[in-house]
Amino acid sequence: MSLIEERFARLATDNAPGQEVRQTGASGDVTLIGENIPGTPVDFSHGDVNTSAFAPTPGSLEEFVQGVHRGGQQAYTEYRGAAALRDEIASKLARFTGCPVSGSAELILTPGTQGALFLAVASTVVAGDKVAIVRPDYFANRKLVEFLGAEVVPVRLDYFDSGSQAGLNLDDLEAAFKQGATTFLFSNPNNPAGVVYSEAEILQIAKLANTYGVTVIVDQLYSRLLYSGTHYTHLRATEIDSDNVVTIMGPSKTESLSGYRLGVAFGASRLIDRMEKLQAIVSLRAPGYCQAVLRTWFNEPSGWMDERIAQHQAIRDDLLNVFSKSADLQVRSPQAGSYLFPRLPKLTIPLHHFVRALRVQAGVTVTPGTEFSPNSIDSIRLNFSQNHEAAVGAATRIVQLIERYRAA
Amino acid sequence: MSLIEERFARLATDNAPGQEVRQTGASGDVTLIGENIPGTPVDFSHGDVNTSAFAPTPGSLEEFVQGVHRGGQQAYTEYRGAAALRDEIASKLARFTGCPVSGSAELILTPGTQGALFLAVASTVVAGDKVAIVRPDYFANRKLVEFLGAEVVPVRLDYFDSGSQAGLNLDDLEAAFKQGATTFLFSNPNNPAGVVYSEAEILQIAKLANTYGVTVIVDQLYSRLLYSGTHYTHLRATEIDSDNVVTIMGPSKTESLSGYRLGVAFGASRLIDRMEKLQAIVSLRAPGYCQAVLRTWFNEPSGWMDERIAQHQAIRDDLLNVFSKSADLQVRSPQAGSYLFPRLPKLTIPLHHFVRALRVQAGVTVTPGTEFSPNSIDSIRLNFSQNHEAAVGAATRIVQLIERYRAA
Repeated sequence: MSLIEERFARLATDNAPGQEVRQTGASGDVTLIGENIPGTPVDFSHGDVNTSAFAPTPGSLEEFVQGVHRGGQQAYTEYRGAAALRDEIASKLARFTGCPVSGSAELILTPGTQGALFLAVASTVVAGDKVAIVRPDYFANRKLVEFLGAEVVPVRLDYFDSGSQAGLNLDDLEAAFKQGATTFLFSNPNNPAGVVYSEAEILQIAKLANTYGVTVIVDQLYSRLLYSGTHYTHLRATEIDSDNVVTIMGPSKTESLSGYRLGVAFGASRLIDRMEKLQAIVSLRAPGYCQAVLRTWFNEPSGWMDERIAQHQAIRDDLLNVFSKSADLQVRSPQAGSYLFPRLPKLTIPLHHFVRALRVQAGVTVTPGTEFSPNSIDSIRLNFSQNHEAAVGAATRIVQLIERYRAA
Repeated sequence: MSLIEERFARLATDNAPGQEVRQTGASGDVTLIGENIPGTPVDFSHGDVNTSAFAPTPGSLEEFVQGVHRGGQQAYTEYRGAAALRDEIASKLARFTGCPVSGSAELILTPGTQGALFLAVASTVVAGDKVAIVRPDYFANRKLVEFLGAEVVPVRLDYFDSGSQAGLNLDDLEAAFKQGATTFLFSNPNNPAGVVYSEAEILQIAKLANTYGVTVIVDQLYSRLLYSGTHYTHLRATEIDSDNVVTIMGPSKTESLSGYRLGVAFGASRLIDRMEKLQAIVSLRAPGYCQAVLRTWFNEPSGWMDERIAQHQAIRDDLLNVFSKSADLQVRSPQAGSYLFPRLPKLTIPLHHFVRALRVQAGVTVTPGTEFSPNSIDSIRLNFSQNHEAAVGAATRIVQLIERYRAA
């Protein structure tokens, strides 16, 4: 196998969220037990942005249409995004994170947060570097590092039984830095586990990063969707060397604007500068007309965000209630975001077969835990940003199938 | 300088089209002669998509809005793009290029043709590889190769005095393949020179690629905008090994849809597969709602494309007429696309200073030839997809400033 074949073999997307439709023929090798269970199909691999679930921010389409009518100035922005818009977003993000942001020097608009992640990592890491990656964490983090020919140094997140902590293993983290990791990439809230890093954990990350001169890329995609009682600490507002931190956000999740492909990275200008240069050869810019939609961001109608959070919290609680009825199914209540990451009891079939059975027999699509950590062979991820009733029905079917395939 | 600093130093975007606004302070070091010349400002660095020039395809915004109303299925497509849409586009491109395309296996939608180029090159080339690149050619080609740590092997395009040929130096090309270039990347029509490769040249490229087992990536972004008398040969419809060719197109130029960031790559399924895997970690997918706009592609109102081509041809002819009045200004009439690449007479100031003078003194933005070839230190590129009258006025001011700064 050539170097490039090897590299792409590690980039497998067959089990990535939304790609299940491309799996061909393989269901023949899974032995299914019993009848199909009827019910409204639910695709928990991503959020549902239909009007029956969580529609995009009010006014977003109108902003887009106005952008189109502005013509060339909106279609052809600077590679890093329209200047006036960057200033506007920078002040909102400064207020949100509690730390200044310069719209001209420290912020770039990208095609989705995925674009921001790629640009941030590829502007920081080269082949041979070591990068500390949390297990479990967003599936693309590991793939980005590996694609660049760099080495993943795993850091455990013990998200069960960690009290008020997310459960980051800080000894692992310091060991990773000691053995030469120059970059730390993590999501907060954690995707898939839904835990929020405590203030103590974030302060310790900042301290270790300063001590070892490590660049930290923090994906805060879900940091607006906090459930009651959750305290959130922005890494960039700590004592961390501001020249070594990039924060990533975007309106694709809580705001349901994924169809516009918008993301934002902000932080160290030396890295934002590189990201713009790289964006120039990767995609030129975040889609020009779509950029206009960011005017709705942090500018939603009064009460809209509170209601959206309350709706998600209600779904979360009902799903946790359903899952509590299955013996041995272990799940930590997420403090933020819309992911549940239950650990299943021992089953008679491998995880990937069970995931297939859920889809074929119960009309329920979930993402196998192995996308997030090679060790998560007993977990599934659900994005519960769904129609409330349909989600509860689907969770009930998951419990039924667990019972059906449960090892004696 | 560290490896990553070096890599990004070569990715400079200061003179890239549209980035001129980020140049700071440096105009003080340019000694300007004479008064400013009044006139409507024209930005020739990219096409003008305003209604006073070349507006997007009729019905494009309506298709977008319908896409938004389709909700989740349009927002969350497979990474390679919505399946039904890929089938539809595949048949159109098969008809256009005269060679079958499979929508399910051989086509991917990308964020702009820039996205397609990046994915194609990064799916083909690894550090240490050699890649044949035409001089001059699209500025990102060289940068993509260098960013991946690969080596550019230049191939000359003698676009002046080449009769019915584009002027590709086929000896250079074979020499590049002989010395180990495994990939050949080029644009047809050529950006910036506007020349179309003859059938003989394309057949010879195919033959050499087969002989040496070279993968060819051909950027055909402008292949719909052909002026009268131009014959176009699609590389993929020749005897070239179909497993070794990827064709790139998109609706950003002739169709003025750049604000939607849409591109398409089609060809060898082994490479399209890799491109999808890479897209999954770079930007996930072409913007979901924007994908819907591709329904207008190759489906424009009757007569619309003919008229658009005629309008561009009329501007081309008027600009050539203006430039013919400047002694020693040399320009080949483009056979396709909307670029002029005139070679200027010897000036009293360096090219980059003259480009600055054009902007400051004449309100005219052009792209210096050095973006397209290190040898093009005496040329400027103009995208003449502009308001007709404004473009002619701006060309007249260019001629005036050439006379002003011309070496005795």
